[in-house]
Amino acid sequence: MKILLIGASGTIGRAVAAELSARHEVITAGRNSGDVRLDLTDPDSIRAAYAEVGSLDAVVCAAGKVTFKPLAEMTAADFQVGLDDKLMGQVNLVMLGRECVADGGSFTLTGGVLDRDPIVEGSSAAMVNGALNSFALSASIELERGLRINVVSPGVITEALEAYAPYFRGFEPVPAARAALAYAKSVEGKRTGQVFQVI
Amino acid sequence: MKILLIGASGTIGRAVAAELSARHEVITAGRNSGDVRLDLTDPDSIRAAYAEVGSLDAVVCAAGKVTFKPLAEMTAADFQVGLDDKLMGQVNLVMLGRECVADGGSFTLTGGVLDRDPIVEGSSAAMVNGALNSFALSASIELERGLRINVVSPGVITEALEAYAPYFRGFEPVPAARAALAYAKSVEGKRTGQVFQVI
Repeated sequence: MKILLIGASGTIGRAVAAELSARHEVITAGRNSGDVRLDLTDPDSIRAAYAEVGSLDAVVCAAGKVTFKPLAEMTAADFQVGLDDKLMGQVNLVMLGRECVADGGSFTLTGGVLDRDPIVEGSSAAMVNGALNSFALSASIELERGLRINVVSPGVITEALEAYAPYFRGFEPVPAARAALAYAKSVEGKRTGQVFQVI
Repeated sequence: MKILLIGASGTIGRAVAAELSARHEVITAGRNSGDVRLDLTDPDSIRAAYAEVGSLDAVVCAAGKVTFKPLAEMTAADFQVGLDDKLMGQVNLVMLGRECVADGGSFTLTGGVLDRDPIVEGSSAAMVNGALNSFALSASIELERGLRINVVSPGVITEALEAYAPYFRGFEPVPAARAALAYAKSVEGKRTGQVFQVI
């Protein structure tokens, strides 16, 4: 398969690249690195990346920013960061990429555990992850030509614990390589409309 | 209790007003009708409404617009309607109303069945409802002074079936008066962080 991987330089992205590269052609994309440049918040940049890479069998996104702040300090602008980036950035990857992906191909987006197991300062992450899960389920019944869509929803990643541990006390960390398996399941399997939890 | 009810003139809103008015002071709010004017998409209008009504024991929202369209025709602007109105409108009711609600008081927002049981043309509704459920769960662990937050998530409302029936074939309709009970449970009970499904 020919797979476009957005966020390939991140903690999860590197593990997904390692998992998928063994069997597939992986084209890496990122805001500042990778085979092609792609800024999730800029639809023109998404269109340009699709035009550059040509037809694909799968799109995997392991990128997406949200703001972590105490609820009482969250502003409308803070919430909008997550809505524009991790939510609509990934939704736009689907909406603008539908015609670039071959019959039966797939979109695999990244959510996260905070929609169902919330932490302090995580209200935007929760909102965005919940939105992604339900969008994917709903989109899965409307996508044409057997196109599939799933969300991988991992817990806190072991390799990112140094930065995040104080926020995730009591959460069992997930090695990035284990999370990467769920991306492979989405891309190489046939399921659609699923939230693959990795916890 | 003194309760602010947004969307009081709608199908659900009227039933909630009937249910709660029997025991409480209900101040109705709406874009074009009610005791006070409130436009969910305009934070200044939300602030003005809170300033006008003074201290409250509960805020109930039975309003919120999303765009229904085939997935293939949905634009970023179409998704933004739901994000600005039903999602961030209701989130802003919480964020801007926190200081107006008495200790232990509550916010009750309106989601809907489409986040978990999707229909064609419902991708924006699904996204927004999923976001609301997870936001409420996350916000419930951070709200101060015992403030509570819940989402009521009803199926298609019997009284709205004339307009919506073709989209909801096979869904068992929910009488508005039955949905209204879930709002009373949220307001008059003590639970928080819940999605009260009425199906």
